[in-house]
Amino acid sequence: MQIGILGSGVTGQTIGSKLIQLGHEVMLGSRNEANPPAVAWAKDAGQHALYGTFMNAAAFGEIIFNCTRGSASLDALQQAGEENLKGKVLIDTANPLDRSTDRWTLTVSNTDSLGEQIQRAFPETKVVKTLNTVNANVMVDPAKLLERTHVFVSGDDIEAKAVVVRILRDWFDWKEIIDLGGIETARGVEMYVLLWHNLRNAISSQRFNIKVVTSG
Amino acid sequence: MQIGILGSGVTGQTIGSKLIQLGHEVMLGSRNEANPPAVAWAKDAGQHALYGTFMNAAAFGEIIFNCTRGSASLDALQQAGEENLKGKVLIDTANPLDRSTDRWTLTVSNTDSLGEQIQRAFPETKVVKTLNTVNANVMVDPAKLLERTHVFVSGDDIEAKAVVVRILRDWFDWKEIIDLGGIETARGVEMYVLLWHNLRNAISSQRFNIKVVTSG
Repeated sequence: MQIGILGSGVTGQTIGSKLIQLGHEVMLGSRNEANPPAVAWAKDAGQHALYGTFMNAAAFGEIIFNCTRGSASLDALQQAGEENLKGKVLIDTANPLDRSTDRWTLTVSNTDSLGEQIQRAFPETKVVKTLNTVNANVMVDPAKLLERTHVFVSGDDIEAKAVVVRILRDWFDWKEIIDLGGIETARGVEMYVLLWHNLRNAISSQRFNIKVVTSG
Repeated sequence: MQIGILGSGVTGQTIGSKLIQLGHEVMLGSRNEANPPAVAWAKDAGQHALYGTFMNAAAFGEIIFNCTRGSASLDALQQAGEENLKGKVLIDTANPLDRSTDRWTLTVSNTDSLGEQIQRAFPETKVVKTLNTVNANVMVDPAKLLERTHVFVSGDDIEAKAVVVRILRDWFDWKEIIDLGGIETARGVEMYVLLWHNLRNAISSQRFNIKVVTSG
């Protein structure tokens, strides 16, 4: 399958490498066509690994991953182009973090979310929020954790969510996936990121996730 | 021990009943001295169960629980009186929910939190945020869940946090307690409440909690 990944940072590269291993063709998109980290990644990752602009990657992909920084996502998606995203599933892994201060805060929260902003800006694209609650290494290899943990999906399009659930299960080996509901539930998973940050500091590791435990 | 509980709703009553079972004397404080739910609770709960105003309960307690609705907490604490709270440990279980709409939103979040607001308003009180991430039944009986899960503490006073950790462990039987840091980490646990709400809807139960799973 042809996959377009917007963003050539750690998350984009990690997901890209996993998809290449699985036999897919992957184009990493950046603001500039020959972004050095993307060029280096493609060289390492083999002949099915390509790089280009946000627009190139969006046009290339049958499915698109948004792995840009949340504060830059809307701009990156505008550069990708509405026509190149139209009708496609957009897997939004980004968190709207304001990194201008030491304390993590969100650029949008509580009464809105990045997931909703993207869905509103691209109404003909099927936005599914997922994977933003874990570190990139956990995203593509949840079995590295000591127990099965949960990942969440939020989105308005039922069929698009079903596609994403299959991707999470079959490609990334997630066993426990909770459908939280419509794209407005992206608020919850995005706002969780502050607790994630506190937990990372408390346990001095980014390799963790939460498991939802019920009373049976 | 004499415990003052501010708020006579489900959380206040549930914690109050648990403390009575453990042999403590508990006063449930309300806006009005003879709030019907508090009167009924005290009648059921036996001779060590008392009721009164916020001020009465704060004066009575050696340790204070804030179990008021978050949107009303600062006002309730003002009524309780700075002198009655001074030097004491205040265990803040409240969430700053705006219940005026169907969708849950917070009245304070992201760049501030209810825990911080309370600590700023009562600088001589030792505020420890905890238990707000679970339903009242789980607060006092975490063993009802299928596995051990985590509860968190946030606060600026190290000794007060140690007191609260002992209370969580010895009185409520929590085995896994994570110290998130200063009171500003209340932001994370309060903002998690939107994900809690989404999870409650997704799994159709309030009896659940999260377990933090690492890579070992």
